[in-house]
Amino acid sequence: MKTLFVIGGARSGKSRYAQARIEALPGRFAYIATAQARDAEMAGRIARHQADRGGLWSTIEAPVELASAIARASTRYDAILVDCLTLWLSNLMEAGVALDRAFGELNQAIGSCGSPLALIANEVGLGIVPDNPLARAFRDEAGRLNQQIAGTVDEVVLVAAGLPLRLK
Amino acid sequence: MKTLFVIGGARSGKSRYAQARIEALPGRFAYIATAQARDAEMAGRIARHQADRGGLWSTIEAPVELASAIARASTRYDAILVDCLTLWLSNLMEAGVALDRAFGELNQAIGSCGSPLALIANEVGLGIVPDNPLARAFRDEAGRLNQQIAGTVDEVVLVAAGLPLRLK
Amino acid sequence: MKTLFVIGGARSGKSRYAQARIEALPGRFAYIATAQARDAEMAGRIARHQADRGGLWSTIEAPVELASAIARASTRYDAILVDCLTLWLSNLMEAGVALDRAFGELNQAIGSCGSPLALIANEVGLGIVPDNPLARAFRDEAGRLNQQIAGTVDEVVLVAAGLPLRLK
Repeated sequence: MKTLFVIGGARSGKSRYAQARIEALPGRFAYIATAQARDAEMAGRIARHQADRGGLWSTIEAPVELASAIARASTRYDAILVDCLTLWLSNLMEAGVALDRAFGELNQAIGSCGSPLALIANEVGLGIVPDNPLARAFRDEAGRLNQQIAGTVDEVVLVAAGLPLRLK
Repeated sequence: MKTLFVIGGARSGKSRYAQARIEALPGRFAYIATAQARDAEMAGRIARHQADRGGLWSTIEAPVELASAIARASTRYDAILVDCLTLWLSNLMEAGVALDRAFGELNQAIGSCGSPLALIANEVGLGIVPDNPLARAFRDEAGRLNQQIAGTVDEVVLVAAGLPLRLK
Repeated sequence: MKTLFVIGGARSGKSRYAQARIEALPGRFAYIATAQARDAEMAGRIARHQADRGGLWSTIEAPVELASAIARASTRYDAILVDCLTLWLSNLMEAGVALDRAFGELNQAIGSCGSPLALIANEVGLGIVPDNPLARAFRDEAGRLNQQIAGTVDEVVLVAAGLPLRLK
């Protein structure tokens, strides 16, 4: 495994799949979290996931500055998991960051990452068109981001009901 | 076919696919329906589906007590179709039933079912995150249930546009 | 390629995939657009897509009368792309057109089309059940239409994150 992109729906088992792929490698691992603990629901979810991962993993928070976090982690850890790009996109849009530039920097960080790297994203475009224009814009950008990352990495896996389906 | 789990979106053809798989077997079949006819839209849909299935099928209603319905049906029918787990989950949550226990009982019923058994569920996690916290919780539990069932059964098929894609 | 049906989520890369499949063929191509430019968001999107396609393509607008547009285009172009059936369905429902008849006419037009023909549709049934009854009805009809077209054509491809997955 060099670079792996795991996509899937909510609670599809994509994080567990990606984590297992990383843990099959030797060494110490960086878990780059893009989530921010803003409310009790989110804080509880983050804490549960961190406890589940156990001692081989170090957690690095990178809600916005993802490319530089990947570059730094690649010099200190044997493999890296980014979970997830969809929350990162949400953070970028909320902060008003220019997306094209941020996407480009991420792509570059993936291309020049020396360690095995897995990235996770949600597939959010398979439901009814949202009424809310912001949700529509988010959905469009998430699809654009997923296409771009899928084009960059070596391997793409769609996870459904915990089961992997290789797309690339 | 021993145990089959069919997942897919709304109107993806998953029921028709699962039904055809059961009808390829010899004997008499139990259709375990988790739907409840609460309004005209739902009643019409249930009646249409029942008429479509025809005389080889007996319909058993099990909106909540699914594990025991499977156990009973396995002693009286040659094959069983459960349609669907996503409505069952919705019924459980509405009734305030403890999910972990209900999921565990279902898993046990699947494991000890002597007859060929097909179970259907919706994939509901591939759209935009719902605004409604209840819808988010439902989506999370549906994903968790689907992963668990997929881990238990022998065969998992994703249906899209009426076409099957084998995941396991 | 004779008849191809490409399904996928919003911004999944399905149009680009279908367009590339058509452009691999020799000759001049018809792009049958079902979109209507009703607001700035839509007009911008249509104009961008038209500019992206370039000079080999002629754009034909067919928001409702799709079957006859396909029949006419098949006599004048070497290959045809219909983008997309989901917007067409939305237009039909808004105009109060009888769906069974329109679906039947489309199916016939596909069957008797002399030129290679690719049709695109959105998969919209993989999210949470919409609150809105109209959205539910739309989702049901979109699923029914997708199943019908998938049954008619020679090849069906699901696109996710820009990557094709052959279903038929």
